[in-house]
Amino acid sequence: MLGPVAGGLLASCSGIGGGKSGGGAGLGSSAQDIASARNLTPDDVAAALTTFMPSGTHDDYYMFASGGHAGQVLVLGVPSMRIIKEIGVFTPEPWQGWGFSDEAKDVLASAQVDGKTMTWGDTHHPALSETSGSYDGQFLFINDKAHARIAVIDLRDMVTKQIVKNPLVISDHACFVTPNTDYLIEGAQYATPLGWGYAPIEQFKDKYRGAVTFWKFDRTAGRIVPEQSFAIELPPYFQDLGDAGKLLSDGWCFLNSFNTELAVGTAVDGKPLEIGASQRDMDYLSVINWKQAAEVAKSAQKINGMPVIKMQEAVNAGILYEIPEPNCPHGVDVAPKGDFMVVSGKLDPHVTVYNFKKIQDAIAAKKFQPDSYGIPVLDFQSCVEAQVEVGLGPLHTQFDDKGYAYTSLFLDSAITRWTLGGDYRQDGWKVADKISVQYNVGHLSAIEGDTVAPKGKFLVSLNKWAIDRFSEVGPLHPQNFQLIDISGDKMKLVYDMPIGMAEPHYAQMVRAEVVKPWKVYPKTGWDPATQQSSTVATVEPTKAGVGRDGTTSTVNMTAMRSHYSPDIVKVKQGDKVVWHLTNIENAEDATHGFSLPGQNVNLSLEPGATLTVTFTADHAGVHPYYCTEFCSALHLEMMGYFIVEP
Amino acid sequence: MLGPVAGGLLASCSGIGGGKSGGGAGLGSSAQDIASARNLTPDDVAAALTTFMPSGTHDDYYMFASGGHAGQVLVLGVPSMRIIKEIGVFTPEPWQGWGFSDEAKDVLASAQVDGKTMTWGDTHHPALSETSGSYDGQFLFINDKAHARIAVIDLRDMVTKQIVKNPLVISDHACFVTPNTDYLIEGAQYATPLGWGYAPIEQFKDKYRGAVTFWKFDRTAGRIVPEQSFAIELPPYFQDLGDAGKLLSDGWCFLNSFNTELAVGTAVDGKPLEIGASQRDMDYLSVINWKQAAEVAKSAQKINGMPVIKMQEAVNAGILYEIPEPNCPHGVDVAPKGDFMVVSGKLDPHVTVYNFKKIQDAIAAKKFQPDSYGIPVLDFQSCVEAQVEVGLGPLHTQFDDKGYAYTSLFLDSAITRWTLGGDYRQDGWKVADKISVQYNVGHLSAIEGDTVAPKGKFLVSLNKWAIDRFSEVGPLHPQNFQLIDISGDKMKLVYDMPIGMAEPHYAQMVRAEVVKPWKVYPKTGWDPATQQSSTVATVEPTKAGVGRDGTTSTVNMTAMRSHYSPDIVKVKQGDKVVWHLTNIENAEDATHGFSLPGQNVNLSLEPGATLTVTFTADHAGVHPYYCTEFCSALHLEMMGYFIVEP
Repeated sequence: MLGPVAGGLLASCSGIGGGKSGGGAGLGSSAQDIASARNLTPDDVAAALTTFMPSGTHDDYYMFASGGHAGQVLVLGVPSMRIIKEIGVFTPEPWQGWGFSDEAKDVLASAQVDGKTMTWGDTHHPALSETSGSYDGQFLFINDKAHARIAVIDLRDMVTKQIVKNPLVISDHACFVTPNTDYLIEGAQYATPLGWGYAPIEQFKDKYRGAVTFWKFDRTAGRIVPEQSFAIELPPYFQDLGDAGKLLSDGWCFLNSFNTELAVGTAVDGKPLEIGASQRDMDYLSVINWKQAAEVAKSAQKINGMPVIKMQEAVNAGILYEIPEPNCPHGVDVAPKGDFMVVSGKLDPHVTVYNFKKIQDAIAAKKFQPDSYGIPVLDFQSCVEAQVEVGLGPLHTQFDDKGYAYTSLFLDSAITRWTLGGDYRQDGWKVADKISVQYNVGHLSAIEGDTVAPKGKFLVSLNKWAIDRFSEVGPLHPQNFQLIDISGDKMKLVYDMPIGMAEPHYAQMVRAEVVKPWKVYPKTGWDPATQQSSTVATVEPTKAGVGRDGTTSTVNMTAMRSHYSPDIVKVKQGDKVVWHLTNIENAEDATHGFSLPGQNVNLSLEPGATLTVTFTADHAGVHPYYCTEFCSALHLEMMGYFIVEP
Repeated sequence: MLGPVAGGLLASCSGIGGGKSGGGAGLGSSAQDIASARNLTPDDVAAALTTFMPSGTHDDYYMFASGGHAGQVLVLGVPSMRIIKEIGVFTPEPWQGWGFSDEAKDVLASAQVDGKTMTWGDTHHPALSETSGSYDGQFLFINDKAHARIAVIDLRDMVTKQIVKNPLVISDHACFVTPNTDYLIEGAQYATPLGWGYAPIEQFKDKYRGAVTFWKFDRTAGRIVPEQSFAIELPPYFQDLGDAGKLLSDGWCFLNSFNTELAVGTAVDGKPLEIGASQRDMDYLSVINWKQAAEVAKSAQKINGMPVIKMQEAVNAGILYEIPEPNCPHGVDVAPKGDFMVVSGKLDPHVTVYNFKKIQDAIAAKKFQPDSYGIPVLDFQSCVEAQVEVGLGPLHTQFDDKGYAYTSLFLDSAITRWTLGGDYRQDGWKVADKISVQYNVGHLSAIEGDTVAPKGKFLVSLNKWAIDRFSEVGPLHPQNFQLIDISGDKMKLVYDMPIGMAEPHYAQMVRAEVVKPWKVYPKTGWDPATQQSSTVATVEPTKAGVGRDGTTSTVNMTAMRSHYSPDIVKVKQGDKVVWHLTNIENAEDATHGFSLPGQNVNLSLEPGATLTVTFTADHAGVHPYYCTEFCSALHLEMMGYFIVEP
């Protein structure tokens, strides 16, 4: 009656290819019935068929989206819009063991704020690494606006490898790379005294400052090199988004700013900040020669260890200019050929397009006047190529492969498609199409839409408000990512994906074939922190065991289906315990977890990985440790006892 | 040129109804073209049209899925399978401010483990509250296997309200309610000395114990009442899943167990636990009269404050029995009428069906022999109604509205549909259909499939391994939720949804109309922790301000688009700061965040909510606080300065 199943206790993989029926492509007889029963319109049907991924097929594109104040990065597949992975970055996340192993704790602790380890971040702007201005699929950078930090994620395993804390400022916004990822550029946001010290708010104009920081990136090491990085002091305007020049404009970068009014709010100005900061018609776009700045920085004085080029030095060296830009700007986006810079002020219905050559000409002809900090402000009309009236609340612009630009309209809850002029199209600088989105779009993202070679096809509208669009989940609503098909003459809305675990700001999308993640780690006993063989791995169960030296107990453990070796670990109460674990599996997806109660420990050990956890055995008693990934039919038996003797 | 937009600075909602084209239902002319271009088969098309939700329409069902060792709960819409929300439970989550406000910190700290606040949990079994055996949409319970804790989520706002720590055991697995939610039943998992003390592993049989805990739930208060809860001591078998009797079997519950061999692993037994625990053909299903136990518990002695009915007391009182069940069981599932109990041992290819009346008859006729702990073991054949050979690795069973049962097969990577006999169907106890899933399914969930009135229609296969099914995201793969249409004669796989932020174990699905969440909080100045008006709310900006008493500064702040009042907060270094914030918006989705750098603070203030954060102002300097939810066109200006004077 109960004949036990011979063998087969491991996770098995029967049914590969299941779910995909045979026969050719076509609608079939049941399609009309289902459409009628569900009251689907022809547009609904087209949208469903455009976005549905048959079971087992892979999406054509990756989207890397910031996780907002969740502090993480979301990886989505496009066109299905399914979230394939959340990558732990600034916030500990136990499913992937992020922030629970010694290795991950070290990364988080290396970016402390005034001596404290933060357990969250406000991620805003993901930036894929680039080679010659195109995404190369190697690294992803993301900033933490709340604390002015930058994280580096290695896309081979999609694990965060490094976080750096800006030593000058406490908030940031922009995070973007130069065309060969020589530098990662971080713009400050809210002005404070540089170094995050104290100064009375009444001395805002004189003692508070903005900044832009150029973090040197070592592609071979896969790490930012703080010792080779530098910054430029800026006025206490609130720096916002930026973009690097490319091709024609390579070597320069563009950083916009708001609150050039220097408002600080009711308590000082007698009027709210949002009113005070909206008084002038124009704010300033900073135009910076970063290649030249890297040279100037070599002789710059340091603040908190970071070379800082003072404003006057930058002006003297001819590396810092400003151009008036419409009030309350957010995005500044360089067109694919590097020739045009598109800005949009949210309180002006136009996008404003500057011409890089005209900017250079204006600089050469000294067509500028100093602002109140002595920075040359270029003549607006001399730099402008065009203004296009796109609608209310323009915020951010992306590009496609047909010479179209796309601008998000926060107030209109819409996206406008308009034509680029110059070498792009004959019919330049005109609105071509407009589509409503639901609701209040912030950023938008097109496939490789901020590179030298955008791919078109799809665009995602990252909407800030969902209101009534999804099933009710209490007062905290999701956001709404809407996928728009931009391949045809008219834009078509084809999918709504709620995002109920983050308030993402920006995203980048890339063709799937550009990203080449590992399926398992290259060797058994791999240290994901260093991306090299671990020095503390145990790769054979027979060599696993527990050693004790003084009051330190060291556990060398292996994990494989369905057993930890050793399976009983005894230590003395009060011992320091150093516990090394290696997953000696090499099968794809054969991850094991490791939970230890009372010590706040959960690790995720991917095939080949070695991780360490260190703690004090302060509770005398019996601690069952177990695998938290359902790894086999006998997964529940993959446990052991950690016994702390009194 | 730059005429500023008059008004309209708030988030606006133009375009409502956009995305849904007019005209009637139908396929349209482009459907065939898209299907051909994308090589979609008729089955693919049918699946796409079955699951696609047109823009702005709401899913028909909610799914509440455990978040595995992410420690959270996922809320999905079905049939689209989109994740609408992640609810923070055991793990701090800054997007929703969970674990960052004083109120949320108090909830996490109330369930400490040996004096330590855990920042993760291993959620396994969500349980919706029930009335008369059907989901009532009011509360959701979820356990933390790693630390034996139970959380209570109020579905009006989908926020965690309470976490209780089991004072007896350190791990659990089962978490299920009685038919009117009088009790929440928690089965232990790995045996330890009760009270989590020390005993040598060599004394496993005598000193280690299992347990089942009955947590009293006060529906009016929306809280578990530990003072009215109790437990029953069990042998040191590893208790696993359970289910409550209903209708015919109301008042009883059923809890299975594995490792009745009392194996503890290589170090003691000379063979691995997974071998030692698989030696016998049979483990034991515990059969417990919980209504009678509640009476017996009134005179029981307490351990760590919890009344515990000793095994011998339970035997003497006639409230505890066992029945042999096939080796390595996981699910025990009571059929809709309460008449049959379905168990499945993962190493036996059958499901085994017990008949409740036969169990009662066997008890009355004393057809039992004691196990080695003196617990009466009922005669297997006397209790069994049927065995159905379903396939390899049967794990968990759900029911529909047509008399079918569905059992997941871990080793076969399949789901079997089989017929119930008795009053359900004439053609009972036969396999009716089988469908492959990708891969290695653990639990499965059908619409209200464990209630007295299952709804059929859809079933979700919660697969443990995805392997190659999705775009590659590094060595840590997502899991795969597969939606299966069970409305027809043959089961049809219609959607694959990767889950890349959790390893969910079980889920429950309910008709959307049963759950009635709030859209905004009922009153401005609402305390989500108590679900009452807050005693510390400030609801008028003119009454906001900062007070100082000794070295304590108290901030009473309001938030509304696009301003905090006050917008400058000054305190002295070293002050204790108590900061109360109230979101005075009442528009749906008008959430504001509150980020304060350096103090690890991010709050999510839903419309009407009042929250508090308390900290020491230890860093002299200028801290820009700002809104982390993009709330209006002037959202970036929604900030202020917290100035800590040296």
